[in-house]
Amino acid sequence: MNEATPLTSSSVLPQKGTPLAIPCKLLGDVPLPAAVIHEAPLAHNLAWMQRFAEAHGARLAPHGKTTMAPALFRRQLEAGAWGITLATASQCRAAFVHGVRRLLMANQLVGEANMGIVAELIEGGADYYCVVDSVENVGQLGPFFAARGLELQVLIELGVTGGRCGCRDAIQVEALVAAIAEQPALRLVGVEGYEGMIAGGDEVAAVRAYGERLVDTVRALHASGVLACEAPIVTASGSKWFDLIAEAFDEAELREHYTPVLRPGCYVVHDHKLYAGAMADVKARHPHLEGELQPALEVFAHVQSLPEPGLAIIALGKRDIGHEPDLPLPLRLYPLASQPEAGMVPADVTAWHTTHIMDQHVFLAIPQDTPIAVGDVIAFGTSHPCLTFDKWRQLLLVDDTLTVKEALATYF
Amino acid sequence: MNEATPLTSSSVLPQKGTPLAIPCKLLGDVPLPAAVIHEAPLAHNLAWMQRFAEAHGARLAPHGKTTMAPALFRRQLEAGAWGITLATASQCRAAFVHGVRRLLMANQLVGEANMGIVAELIEGGADYYCVVDSVENVGQLGPFFAARGLELQVLIELGVTGGRCGCRDAIQVEALVAAIAEQPALRLVGVEGYEGMIAGGDEVAAVRAYGERLVDTVRALHASGVLACEAPIVTASGSKWFDLIAEAFDEAELREHYTPVLRPGCYVVHDHKLYAGAMADVKARHPHLEGELQPALEVFAHVQSLPEPGLAIIALGKRDIGHEPDLPLPLRLYPLASQPEAGMVPADVTAWHTTHIMDQHVFLAIPQDTPIAVGDVIAFGTSHPCLTFDKWRQLLLVDDTLTVKEALATYF
Repeated sequence: MNEATPLTSSSVLPQKGTPLAIPCKLLGDVPLPAAVIHEAPLAHNLAWMQRFAEAHGARLAPHGKTTMAPALFRRQLEAGAWGITLATASQCRAAFVHGVRRLLMANQLVGEANMGIVAELIEGGADYYCVVDSVENVGQLGPFFAARGLELQVLIELGVTGGRCGCRDAIQVEALVAAIAEQPALRLVGVEGYEGMIAGGDEVAAVRAYGERLVDTVRALHASGVLACEAPIVTASGSKWFDLIAEAFDEAELREHYTPVLRPGCYVVHDHKLYAGAMADVKARHPHLEGELQPALEVFAHVQSLPEPGLAIIALGKRDIGHEPDLPLPLRLYPLASQPEAGMVPADVTAWHTTHIMDQHVFLAIPQDTPIAVGDVIAFGTSHPCLTFDKWRQLLLVDDTLTVKEALATYF
Repeated sequence: MNEATPLTSSSVLPQKGTPLAIPCKLLGDVPLPAAVIHEAPLAHNLAWMQRFAEAHGARLAPHGKTTMAPALFRRQLEAGAWGITLATASQCRAAFVHGVRRLLMANQLVGEANMGIVAELIEGGADYYCVVDSVENVGQLGPFFAARGLELQVLIELGVTGGRCGCRDAIQVEALVAAIAEQPALRLVGVEGYEGMIAGGDEVAAVRAYGERLVDTVRALHASGVLACEAPIVTASGSKWFDLIAEAFDEAELREHYTPVLRPGCYVVHDHKLYAGAMADVKARHPHLEGELQPALEVFAHVQSLPEPGLAIIALGKRDIGHEPDLPLPLRLYPLASQPEAGMVPADVTAWHTTHIMDQHVFLAIPQDTPIAVGDVIAFGTSHPCLTFDKWRQLLLVDDTLTVKEALATYF
């Protein structure tokens, strides 16, 4: 066990075990597989979604759980975002430690250890919000934060029947308002929802109706005087129906007297299939909308084995790339081994397809006469970026020449 | 962005963002969700599989890709393992940096950056092995390691038609032997395979035949004088058919003149369904086999929301626990919130079932009259442990009282 000479004394290992000297060349210097974010579409997406939100009079609090990369949070805030949305107390802590001050936790805060994390954040200066949908939870939060001498800002969560969390009806909302009123440590500041659970039937109509329900609810609460803030928050929106929620929130009264907040997450790197399709739907609903989101996230991997005609095994697996709802999508082949002189000139391989994925291997069906060799490199796209980010402790930011300019650390 | 007071100056965040003081109480001190390894079944499994391999005259090189936890590698080596198997060059580096000297990489070594990592390991004193199945790859490895003045130990990989990597027939093996012979930097030391790709038909017979093919091939190569070592290696075995491979390797001649190596990975923590079933099959094939593997890995999470009768939303998602081939399996409910006085006395909830999983949420179907509250804790089991380990930067080793005794860091 102890015969070997250690290579490093500190044992600080970035993702997949290997430190990198930056700048460097993605193809050659970097051990593959590697997850890559392309600089130009990233910058485009940051600006595009910010502009979209502002055009509708809404604030942007991008969902940070997608990337958990503070270097991207920083870019989102610099582009004009109002805050960062997160899913858990630990995620909020990671964001706050890296400089994010306004944290919108789009879940109930449950468990004393998690409440302890949030108390520490608020004591440290965080402008923190969480959601509540349960009288029980209110009864847990109130005494905990009162004992710490702190105030906790909460939003009532509205849900849909058959959906995920959130109050299903006005009676539940009423009970929750009454429960919050009994807890001096809790400050009710608005209404939260997530339209992404709506499925089946006329989804567009249902999402619009849900957006209106959120607006109606926050107005009714405001009118009844139970909201303890000047510009109450109304917030929803994932990355699929963001246009419909933005429209539901786009009213002169809301612009002036409320804080409408959109929370898409995947937009920042977009994707090659699921959200590409959602973007096409947005464009179909708004033919005059200028520009669109562009895919920025790819994973580069080697051809590992060519054991049978028509089959390539790729050194890439579930440990490296998301595979739901669609298997990894082959985009471009860099023939580094098969045609070294042309290695950096990629061929379009979007017609190929992945047939199977294992922990460390992808099975790719390829044309039998393809010039390809073990050691060639393929760039893959994804369908839904979230479950690719969490496979990596750092993603590599590259420019048009595939020069690595920055390593973006993640904190999952 | 910079208004907040940083909580820590070093920004070193263990998994899910929160450092822990150890020892501590899992239920109360630790922000959930948390991945947990139970100490007693872990110790049992380490000893059980080592004894099993030794009883068959085989060495054990547990597949480290399952856990990528050097603290577990150390325990495996201390229990008597011959080395650690890994899937990639970066994994090998992570293991070596943490003190593992003998590294069996059960894949081809592809790409110059990956070869560079391995060269550094060999220079540092690693006893490193990789597999080859391609003449092209041999032509890449030979010059690379020759230029560094190093020798690379390789095993020929045998595969099955319709399977993953590896030579399909003897003609390919012959071509590979000839190609290796032309590369003075390469030392052929044995034969490798993975029986886990065999599916359909009489699988038991097919796995036995594959084991025999591995043995026959290494014998033939040895007889022909092309193996450059005293006790050639023959290796296979995942966690499902390990008994059949062990039997195929269990011959007096192999015990004496070869190095048979088994490579199961999942055995170390076992599971609650997929490998539990495989273990039942092993026991059915060997009714007199003493003892069996025990599940050691669980993920603990809070009840997050109870929005409708019969539905509990759990603060646990694809980011926290594997969900293939089966969704997370509810095991025990700790009624911390619903019955605080009995909070540490768990109820059996194995009859409940998960109906859906999202990035950060699990949907659990529960009996409508169940006493349960937001804040209660449920321990979940998994089916296939590999894809739970890679969700965590550390797993928590707990004793029978759920006291956390050690945090086991992972290096994915």
